[in-house]
Amino acid sequence: MICTALVFIMHLGFSFLEIGLTRQKNTINILFKNFFIITMGLLVYCLGGFNLMYPGFEEGANGVLKFAGFGITAPEGGMEFGYADGGYTWWTDFLFQGMFAATAATIVSGAVAERIKLSSFMFFSLIYVGLVYPIVGSWKWGGGFLDRWGFYDFAGSTLVHSVGGWAALIAIYVLGARVGKFDEQGKPKALLGHNIPLAAAGVLILWLGWFGFNGGSVLSADPALTSLTLVTTSLAAAAGGASAAMFSTLLYKNYDLTMFMNGILGGLVGITAGADQMSPTDAILIGSIAGIIIVLGVALIDRLKLDDPVGAVAVHLICGIWGTLAVGIFGSMAGWTQFLVQLAGVGIIGAFCVVSSGILLFAIKAAMGIRVSREEEIKGLDLAEHGMDAYADFRLNQH
Amino acid sequence: MICTALVFIMHLGFSFLEIGLTRQKNTINILFKNFFIITMGLLVYCLGGFNLMYPGFEEGANGVLKFAGFGITAPEGGMEFGYADGGYTWWTDFLFQGMFAATAATIVSGAVAERIKLSSFMFFSLIYVGLVYPIVGSWKWGGGFLDRWGFYDFAGSTLVHSVGGWAALIAIYVLGARVGKFDEQGKPKALLGHNIPLAAAGVLILWLGWFGFNGGSVLSADPALTSLTLVTTSLAAAAGGASAAMFSTLLYKNYDLTMFMNGILGGLVGITAGADQMSPTDAILIGSIAGIIIVLGVALIDRLKLDDPVGAVAVHLICGIWGTLAVGIFGSMAGWTQFLVQLAGVGIIGAFCVVSSGILLFAIKAAMGIRVSREEEIKGLDLAEHGMDAYADFRLNQH
Amino acid sequence: MICTALVFIMHLGFSFLEIGLTRQKNTINILFKNFFIITMGLLVYCLGGFNLMYPGFEEGANGVLKFAGFGITAPEGGMEFGYADGGYTWWTDFLFQGMFAATAATIVSGAVAERIKLSSFMFFSLIYVGLVYPIVGSWKWGGGFLDRWGFYDFAGSTLVHSVGGWAALIAIYVLGARVGKFDEQGKPKALLGHNIPLAAAGVLILWLGWFGFNGGSVLSADPALTSLTLVTTSLAAAAGGASAAMFSTLLYKNYDLTMFMNGILGGLVGITAGADQMSPTDAILIGSIAGIIIVLGVALIDRLKLDDPVGAVAVHLICGIWGTLAVGIFGSMAGWTQFLVQLAGVGIIGAFCVVSSGILLFAIKAAMGIRVSREEEIKGLDLAEHGMDAYADFRLNQH
Repeated sequence: MICTALVFIMHLGFSFLEIGLTRQKNTINILFKNFFIITMGLLVYCLGGFNLMYPGFEEGANGVLKFAGFGITAPEGGMEFGYADGGYTWWTDFLFQGMFAATAATIVSGAVAERIKLSSFMFFSLIYVGLVYPIVGSWKWGGGFLDRWGFYDFAGSTLVHSVGGWAALIAIYVLGARVGKFDEQGKPKALLGHNIPLAAAGVLILWLGWFGFNGGSVLSADPALTSLTLVTTSLAAAAGGASAAMFSTLLYKNYDLTMFMNGILGGLVGITAGADQMSPTDAILIGSIAGIIIVLGVALIDRLKLDDPVGAVAVHLICGIWGTLAVGIFGSMAGWTQFLVQLAGVGIIGAFCVVSSGILLFAIKAAMGIRVSREEEIKGLDLAEHGMDAYADFRLNQH
Repeated sequence: MICTALVFIMHLGFSFLEIGLTRQKNTINILFKNFFIITMGLLVYCLGGFNLMYPGFEEGANGVLKFAGFGITAPEGGMEFGYADGGYTWWTDFLFQGMFAATAATIVSGAVAERIKLSSFMFFSLIYVGLVYPIVGSWKWGGGFLDRWGFYDFAGSTLVHSVGGWAALIAIYVLGARVGKFDEQGKPKALLGHNIPLAAAGVLILWLGWFGFNGGSVLSADPALTSLTLVTTSLAAAAGGASAAMFSTLLYKNYDLTMFMNGILGGLVGITAGADQMSPTDAILIGSIAGIIIVLGVALIDRLKLDDPVGAVAVHLICGIWGTLAVGIFGSMAGWTQFLVQLAGVGIIGAFCVVSSGILLFAIKAAMGIRVSREEEIKGLDLAEHGMDAYADFRLNQH
Repeated sequence: MICTALVFIMHLGFSFLEIGLTRQKNTINILFKNFFIITMGLLVYCLGGFNLMYPGFEEGANGVLKFAGFGITAPEGGMEFGYADGGYTWWTDFLFQGMFAATAATIVSGAVAERIKLSSFMFFSLIYVGLVYPIVGSWKWGGGFLDRWGFYDFAGSTLVHSVGGWAALIAIYVLGARVGKFDEQGKPKALLGHNIPLAAAGVLILWLGWFGFNGGSVLSADPALTSLTLVTTSLAAAAGGASAAMFSTLLYKNYDLTMFMNGILGGLVGITAGADQMSPTDAILIGSIAGIIIVLGVALIDRLKLDDPVGAVAVHLICGIWGTLAVGIFGSMAGWTQFLVQLAGVGIIGAFCVVSSGILLFAIKAAMGIRVSREEEIKGLDLAEHGMDAYADFRLNQH
C-alpha cells in the first residue's frame, strides 16, 4: 500500500521533470496532459486494462491474448491479506498496477511535448494505456508466453519503460522536431528548460517513487528481498548519476546538471529489470554503464535529427533495453540462455510496440492531425489550447 | 504512523495550491498563515483540543460538550500497540488527529487569501481549531450524540471539510471581494494565479495525502478495508477530475486545467465520508457527480458576487455536503433513514459552524478589523505585512 | 524501510531550502552540489564509510578507530528480518545509515553556497562524508568510547547536525563573506533569497523527513516508542517555529517568515538527540528554547561578520549542541552526570571536527583554491561553472 503511494507520487516527479525541461509557454499543456493520463489512465485500467493484463491464461493456451471482461471485482479471497501468497490484498494489487499503467503514456508525453495536439495525444494515450500496455504486460506478468519462456523483467525495464520508450521514439519521428530545434544546416540547438529546480525535484521524487516501484514489485512483505532491492536500486541510481556526470564532464568540459539528472534516471531504469537479482557491486556496474549510455544516447538522438525535449528515449528505451539484457549478464540469473531469452523478449515486445504505435500514430495523423499549427507552437500551447498562462505575474522572455 | 506522515504532507499540498492560485505579491503572507496553522494548530490541539474532541462521554450523557482537561497524557495501555483494538498506539492517534485538526483552518485560509489581516486570521484560526472543530468532532468521532444517532462520516467530508467550508463561506461574505475582482457592472474578472505548476503539484500532493487521510481513518491495520478505501479514494479522484474537465470543456470550449484540478479535489472530498462503504462503481459515480458540482459551484459563487480565490467553498463545503449525503444514497449503507440522518448531521453541524464562525468573525471585525487597507492590498501583503518579497530576483508585472 | 524513503526525501528538502534562500544565479550550482552529495555520498559510504562507522569494536579495545574493510557484505543472518533484535534487515540498516551520511555534507553546502569552488567542495565533501563523519559516528553508534561512557545522541543532534555544523562554521570563516554581504562599515546587508515558496516547501519536506530520521532511529518496529518519538519531534518543531516567530516579531516588529522556518528546523535539530526520552511537555520546552536560540544565533553570526546564507550554523551547530545538552536537563535521563557526559561528547566531537575540517579546508585552499573569482561570483556560478541558466524564460533582475 505504501508502495502504491510512492508509485503515485512518481506522476508528480514526471510532471516536474517534463515542465522543468521545457519552455514556460507549454507548462499548462504539459500539466493537463499529465492530469489526463493519471485520471483517465486509472479509469481505463479499471474499465478493462487490468482484466486484459491479468486474464488468467489457462494451462495449454498460447498465452498471447485473453480478456477477462469489463470492470473489476475482487476474486474469492481477494479481500484477504496474503492474497496469492503475497503480503497484500487484491485491491492493493489492482491499485499498484493501475498506478504503473499510466507510466507508459507519461514517458511518451515527455518526448512529444511542446508540439503535439492535445486531443490527438489524449486519444493516443487512451488506446496505448488501455490496450497495448496491458497486452504486452499479460505476456509476462499475466503469465503469458514470455513468462513461460523464462523471460525476466522484475519491475518493468521492458514491460513499462521500453513500452513507453518505443512509442516515444516512433512519435517523435512522426511528429518531427520543434520549430527552432535544428538550424538550416541541421545543427541542433538547445531549447532551454525554463525551471531547472522543478526538473531536479522531479528526479529526486522519481528516485523516491522507484523505492515503491521496485520495492513494491517484490509483491510481498519479504523484508530481506525488499531491502536488498532498495539497496540495489539506490546504488544503481547513484552510480548512473555519477558516471553520466563524470563522462559528460570529460567529454564536454562542463559540469552538466541535465546529464547528471538523466544519468540517475538511466541507472534507475537500468536496474529495474533485475533489481532483486543483483549484488550491490552488480548494481553499481549496471548503473555506471547506464550513465554512459545516457550521454551517448542523447548525442545519438540529436545526430539522428530527432527531437526529444526531455531525453525520454535515451532514458526509458535505451536504458530499458540495457537493463533487460543486463539480467542475462550480471547477477544470479546471468548466462547465455537467459541472455538470449532476454534478447528475444526485448525484440518481440519492441516489434509489437513499434508496429502498434506506428499504426496508431499514422492513423491519428491522417484522421485528425497530430501536430499543432506553426503559429500555435510559436505562441505556446498554453495560450493556444488553454487560454491560460502558467506564470501570470512574471515577466517572460519572448521566444 | 505512515498515514500521519501522509496527512502532514497535505499541508504542503494546501500551501502549494493556495500560493499557486493567487498572486505573487501575497505569497509570503500565505506561507506565514500556513506555517502558523500547522505549528499553533498542533500546539493548541495538544493543549486542549484533543481532550475536547475525545472527552469520553459517559453513558447516558447527552454527548454535546465535555472537556477532559488541559494537556495530553497517554491513558493506561495507550503505549501498547493495538490500543482500542486498532493497530496503533494512543500517541499515533493523537498525532494523526492533530494533523487533521489544522486542516479546517487551512481551508478557510485559501478562501480569505489576499485581503485578510494576518493578526485577525491568526486569532480566528486559533479559536476555530481549538474550540469549534473539536466540539463538532466530539459529536461524532468523540462518541457524542450524532454518533449515537447513526450519523456516518468516515474521514470527515462534514467533520473536517464542511466545518472548514462553512467558515470559509461566512468569511468571504464578511470580508468582501478583493479589489478588482468584480468590475463596476458586477462582472467577475479572473485574478490569475501566478504559479500553476505549484498549484498542480499541490493537487497531486493532496491526493497523496488523502491516501493517508482516508487510509489512516480505517484506524487499524486491517489491510482489506484499507486497500479498498485507497481504491475508492483514487477512483473518485480520477472520476472527479475527468468529469470536471469534460463538463467544463463542453461548457466553456476550453481545456481548463483549474477545473481539472478542483474536480480531483472535489472527488476526494466527496468520497471521504463513505470511502470504506463504497464499491469501485459507487466511487466513480460519486466522484463524477462531484466533478460536475465543482464546475457549477464555482460559477454559482461568482454569481453570488462572492470571491473565493481558490474555490474552497465549492470543493470543501459543497462537495463535503454531497459526500456526506452520498453515504445515504450509494454503497452498503444506502437507505432513506440513513439519508435523513446524514441530512440532519449536515444541517446541525452547518448551523453550528455558521453561527459560531459568524459571531467570531463579526466580533473580530468590530474589535480589531478584519481586512487590510486598500493600499496594503494593492501593494501586496508580502511587502505590507512582512517587508519581504517571495521572488526577489525575478521581474514582476505590476498589477 | 519507509523511514529510509523519508530520510531520502530530506535531500529534496535541503535542496529546496538552499535554493530558495539564495540567489537565482547560483541555483544550478546548488543542485549540482546536492546531486553530487547524494550520489557520491552513498557510493563512498558503500565503499568504506559504513565499515568505518560500524567496525565492530572488540571488547577491551579503546574504541577510537577501526576499519572493517572495503565494500559491503551482509553478515550471517543479516538478510533475516529482526537482524540485531530490530524489526529490520542488515540491508535496510545500511541504506538508512547511507542516507544519513550525506546529510553532514549537505549542511556545509548551504553555508558555503554562492562562492565556493565546485571542485573544492566536491573534494571536501568526499573526505568529510567518507572519513570524518564515520569516524565520529563509530565513537557512539559504532559502539566506540563515547558509547561506553554513556553519551546519548538518539538520532544525531551531535553526530550528524553538529558534525556538519562545525565544518560549516570553519568553512565560512575560511571562505569569507559573499561580495556585497557587508558594506564598508561592516554592516550586514540581506542578500535576498529568490524563491521563498521552494524554501518553505523545503522546511515542510524536512519536517516530513524527520519523521523518518527520528522515527527510524528507534531502529525497531516498537510502535509505542516510535509513535512517542514522532509526537515529541512534531511538538518540538511546532514549538520551535512558534517561539522563533513570536520572539522575532517582538524584537523586529515584523512577521518574519525566514525566522519561522528556521525556528521549525531548530526545534527539529534540538529534539533529535533525545526524541525518545522526552515527554510532550519536555519536547515543547526544548523546541521553544531552540526557537529563541535561532533568532539570537542568526544575529550573532552576523555580528561576527560571518556569512551563512541559509542559517546553517545557528540551526545545525548551535541547536545541535543545545539538543545534546538538553538530554542531560530534560526527560528521563536528566541529571548532572549525564549532563557532563553530554558536554564531554559535544566538546570532544567538536574539537575533532574543527581540527579535521580546518586542516582539510586550509589544505584545499592552499592546493587548489577554495573560492571562485570575484567576477565569477558576481556573474553567478550557474553561468561561470555550468554554462546554464536555471530559469531561461524568465526576466531576471541583475545584481
